[in-house]
Amino acid sequence: MSNALDEKQDTYHIELGGVTRELPLVQPTPNTRLPLVELLGDVELTRAAAQELQKLLPAETELLFTCETSSISLVHVLSELTGLPYEVARKRRRPYMQEPLIQEVASMTLGVNETLWLGSRRAENLHGRNVGVILDVVSSGGTLQALEKLVQRAGGSICCRLAAFTQGKPGVPVTSLQELPRISLAK
Amino acid sequence: MSNALDEKQDTYHIELGGVTRELPLVQPTPNTRLPLVELLGDVELTRAAAQELQKLLPAETELLFTCETSSISLVHVLSELTGLPYEVARKRRRPYMQEPLIQEVASMTLGVNETLWLGSRRAENLHGRNVGVILDVVSSGGTLQALEKLVQRAGGSICCRLAAFTQGKPGVPVTSLQELPRISLAK
Repeated sequence: MSNALDEKQDTYHIELGGVTRELPLVQPTPNTRLPLVELLGDVELTRAAAQELQKLLPAETELLFTCETSSISLVHVLSELTGLPYEVARKRRRPYMQEPLIQEVASMTLGVNETLWLGSRRAENLHGRNVGVILDVVSSGGTLQALEKLVQRAGGSICCRLAAFTQGKPGVPVTSLQELPRISLAK
Repeated sequence: MSNALDEKQDTYHIELGGVTRELPLVQPTPNTRLPLVELLGDVELTRAAAQELQKLLPAETELLFTCETSSISLVHVLSELTGLPYEVARKRRRPYMQEPLIQEVASMTLGVNETLWLGSRRAENLHGRNVGVILDVVSSGGTLQALEKLVQRAGGSICCRLAAFTQGKPGVPVTSLQELPRISLAK
């Protein structure tokens, strides 16, 4: 595997659309070590990822769909590049939401359940449209699956599932620009 | 007051940098009615707001600082326009954060307390820098105050407090592009 990671490394090198980064390695759980990619706050890498994702977007895509938080800048820039509108599912109920669609996420990454919220006014924008689901990083695929269910419940059709990065083995089909390693430290 | 709102209105008209919107009126609490402005998903209004905020940014600003979620696209575009880096305080602890700064927010808008989290790696970027705190909407000012405290604790200096909109009477100094009304329905 070309993107293998050993325990001696401090950083992990990536290159995306001509932009290079030395990602820090983090240990989110005692038994896992992985490179951390953060698009928020990184204008250059966000734009490079959006430009590469634009090439993968099917021509029939009518709307981009994601959830907060870390994918927002990516999808915003992709929306600017393509002229396609976008919607963002929230991870907390907002006080102004009317009759929101509520979708549970089984996130294996965090070991806890999350909930996605999409207000009815927002959900209407998905109805009858070809929707591209876009995320910065897909790990287990739980969030992606929850977004898909929201699209279906809102009356939209999924036309693509794209991620800037995959990390681990998502349990759902997704096309990504790049695969990031994840090493298990369990003995 | 030129931006008064009466109970018969369904929408509220705004104009910002040549972009007009009819904002829906929402009732987040039984006794409050207000126009809802949402920059997320609105590329055109976000860019107009960022362009107007750019004019208000002091020349000494070295870094933009905000918190999730609704201000992210605004600050990202402002960062692209100005070339200034930005950082985003989170509202939930992320599993990869190391020794985060933790700051309570007393949010009068929601009537509940929130917490802001800023990982040490991110906090380092604020150290010794002139920081502009940027938000989409400032209501009570509680979030703005919490962001200010994070800047101080990280060793940065506040050089401006800017918002696209104020709504209500913030208890802190803030310069905004526009004031939105808030009506009390209490009899």
